[in-house]
Amino acid sequence: MTTPTSSRRAPVVVIAPDSFKGSLSAEEVATAIGAGIRAAIPDAQVRLCPIADGGEGTLDALMHAGGEHLSVNCRNAAGQYFSAPVGILKNGSAVVESAAIVGLTDLAGTAVAVAERTTLGVGDAILDLLDRGARHFLVALGGSSTNDGGAGLLAALGVKFLDASGDSVPPIASQLQRIASVDTSALDPRVKEAHFVAMSDVDNPLCGEEGATAVFGPQKGVQPEQVAPLDQALAHFASLLEAALGRQASRLPGAGAAGGLGYALLMLGAQFRSGAETVADHIGLDQALAGADWLITGEGRSDAQTLHGKAPFIASQRARRAGVPTTLLSGGIDMKSLEKLQSSFSGCFSIAFGPMSLPDAIAQAPGLLKDSGEQLARLWQASAVRQG
Amino acid sequence: MTTPTSSRRAPVVVIAPDSFKGSLSAEEVATAIGAGIRAAIPDAQVRLCPIADGGEGTLDALMHAGGEHLSVNCRNAAGQYFSAPVGILKNGSAVVESAAIVGLTDLAGTAVAVAERTTLGVGDAILDLLDRGARHFLVALGGSSTNDGGAGLLAALGVKFLDASGDSVPPIASQLQRIASVDTSALDPRVKEAHFVAMSDVDNPLCGEEGATAVFGPQKGVQPEQVAPLDQALAHFASLLEAALGRQASRLPGAGAAGGLGYALLMLGAQFRSGAETVADHIGLDQALAGADWLITGEGRSDAQTLHGKAPFIASQRARRAGVPTTLLSGGIDMKSLEKLQSSFSGCFSIAFGPMSLPDAIAQAPGLLKDSGEQLARLWQASAVRQG
Repeated sequence: MTTPTSSRRAPVVVIAPDSFKGSLSAEEVATAIGAGIRAAIPDAQVRLCPIADGGEGTLDALMHAGGEHLSVNCRNAAGQYFSAPVGILKNGSAVVESAAIVGLTDLAGTAVAVAERTTLGVGDAILDLLDRGARHFLVALGGSSTNDGGAGLLAALGVKFLDASGDSVPPIASQLQRIASVDTSALDPRVKEAHFVAMSDVDNPLCGEEGATAVFGPQKGVQPEQVAPLDQALAHFASLLEAALGRQASRLPGAGAAGGLGYALLMLGAQFRSGAETVADHIGLDQALAGADWLITGEGRSDAQTLHGKAPFIASQRARRAGVPTTLLSGGIDMKSLEKLQSSFSGCFSIAFGPMSLPDAIAQAPGLLKDSGEQLARLWQASAVRQG
Repeated sequence: MTTPTSSRRAPVVVIAPDSFKGSLSAEEVATAIGAGIRAAIPDAQVRLCPIADGGEGTLDALMHAGGEHLSVNCRNAAGQYFSAPVGILKNGSAVVESAAIVGLTDLAGTAVAVAERTTLGVGDAILDLLDRGARHFLVALGGSSTNDGGAGLLAALGVKFLDASGDSVPPIASQLQRIASVDTSALDPRVKEAHFVAMSDVDNPLCGEEGATAVFGPQKGVQPEQVAPLDQALAHFASLLEAALGRQASRLPGAGAAGGLGYALLMLGAQFRSGAETVADHIGLDQALAGADWLITGEGRSDAQTLHGKAPFIASQRARRAGVPTTLLSGGIDMKSLEKLQSSFSGCFSIAFGPMSLPDAIAQAPGLLKDSGEQLARLWQASAVRQG
């Protein structure tokens, strides 16, 4: 009954999970699930398509289909130089992942307070890639630890922030209020030739109640009493920058992404796109789904937020358009969100095989993913054979 | 995609779980899973067949199809009278569940040490049912707290155990060594007309290394130094009883079940049968599986022991013979046993939707069962529609 022989066509299974953050990369997740599917249905055609949503893991997911892996020398959020991964896709687009440079999970970069952190390193990476000839950039904004309005990025690209005495002001949140003038004359001229796609699911403006500081600051370490002054500092910074560049962007959706890094990219003419949609396009998820029977997606933990543009939801929408049912296999499912999640997935499952602790689940994740994939495939097969 | 309309026939789903011991009855489990199946597939034909394996919950499972629920006045393992449930099935068979009378989970009955416990109450129940005209008995042996060799049962039915002075010896393990003679002249004459089926998966003999005391004593509270004297007491008791009744049974498989209650029933001519098989027969599991598409079974926790005659395994074998695939949905799955379990089930699943504690899983079991059943059915349906 478990692996019956029949004349039925072997199923084509697309496995497109996001990473299990803090545990496994999307590719590791996909590989483990795929091994489980093949254990249950040896003749299954398994297509591994690890995905991401513009945060941690986006570079890996985009590079899964191939491309040039590079290391660039750039600054972390604390301003210390280190070697960060970037990539150039087969189509020539350069990929810069903010989470890999100024990420919230980087212990060295987040050793300093959020008001002292900078996005200089994102600018360093772009400069390096400009040197290599790249002119089309995909910049993943999710998972940053910064709140500098993108001042660091702009400073690295040549924009000068000066105080009332004409001295240079460091591009960190705590200093932005001191800026008296912005000099864009030394902005790298190649930036004008470049095209930036900012990958983000955030549509917040730069400032105010819905702005970067108020909404995302606290999870980065902004203290309640710091919200107002840091928000005002961003507004001050933006008013001077906008006057200097002769354009406005602080109220545009996405300006508040990545502590205002989104704003700086908008000021450079960036186009905003959903991270998950962009990744899905670049990895060819639609092509993988063509002729497929079943999509399995997942993430570390699924809740109502999953349905707000997270990668597994975008994948399920792509699958729905292709007429392919989607099953969700995550580390954990928030039970309060199950009813909502169900509307997008043909079954929501966890990798847990019973009561267990979170550390155990994380430690055993690869085995649990394989075993879970195998169970799902056995059930799938039982039903298919019943009907076939 | 979730509940597509098609011309496909609605699936017939048999739901035959064991109880989740210490949490939910088999009927509660089946009802919860069934609600989940119907939520996912509104037109599914759901057949609820709660099962049991001869232990706790066997009476409930047997009575699910109807019958007369009765209360009888009988003694618990500590010898205190209380009101215990028994039943008379539609076919006239009386059901006596040892776990409901001298059960291991009964706090009052197990307040005394195992050497002081008695099966008098099981005899009380049988006497009461004899009074009501019952002559065919199904006695479920699993889950008892006693180790008296069934002396209590026999004493209640009229057998006299006397010491060297001719005084009555109480039918408890600590006193059996004192018995000098056995008088069966007052054994209730209706016992000879009666037919007993002992439901048990145990094939141990009464005494020795594989006997009741050595193998099952410790889990009932027998201390290491008590094993030898209690085992010798059972052997002494058996030699006198066998001389008095002119038959032997102490080496027969099952004599060691329920602390030797199996032995006493064998001495009364009982036939031994697998609890799970007997329940499956009486509830009509094969009939429910006829024409069914899918069986869902489960239990509180599944491990390698499950494959040794436990109810979910027996159910899966019945289903296999009927050509119906079986999915296991348990409170927890022992990962070390998953590979073995998989050979009998088209998918082994837990009710956990992520890392959680055992107390939380128990407290939330009904909701988790419904939700899990719904997810399984959604996946089943997605595969079926794909093929249909």
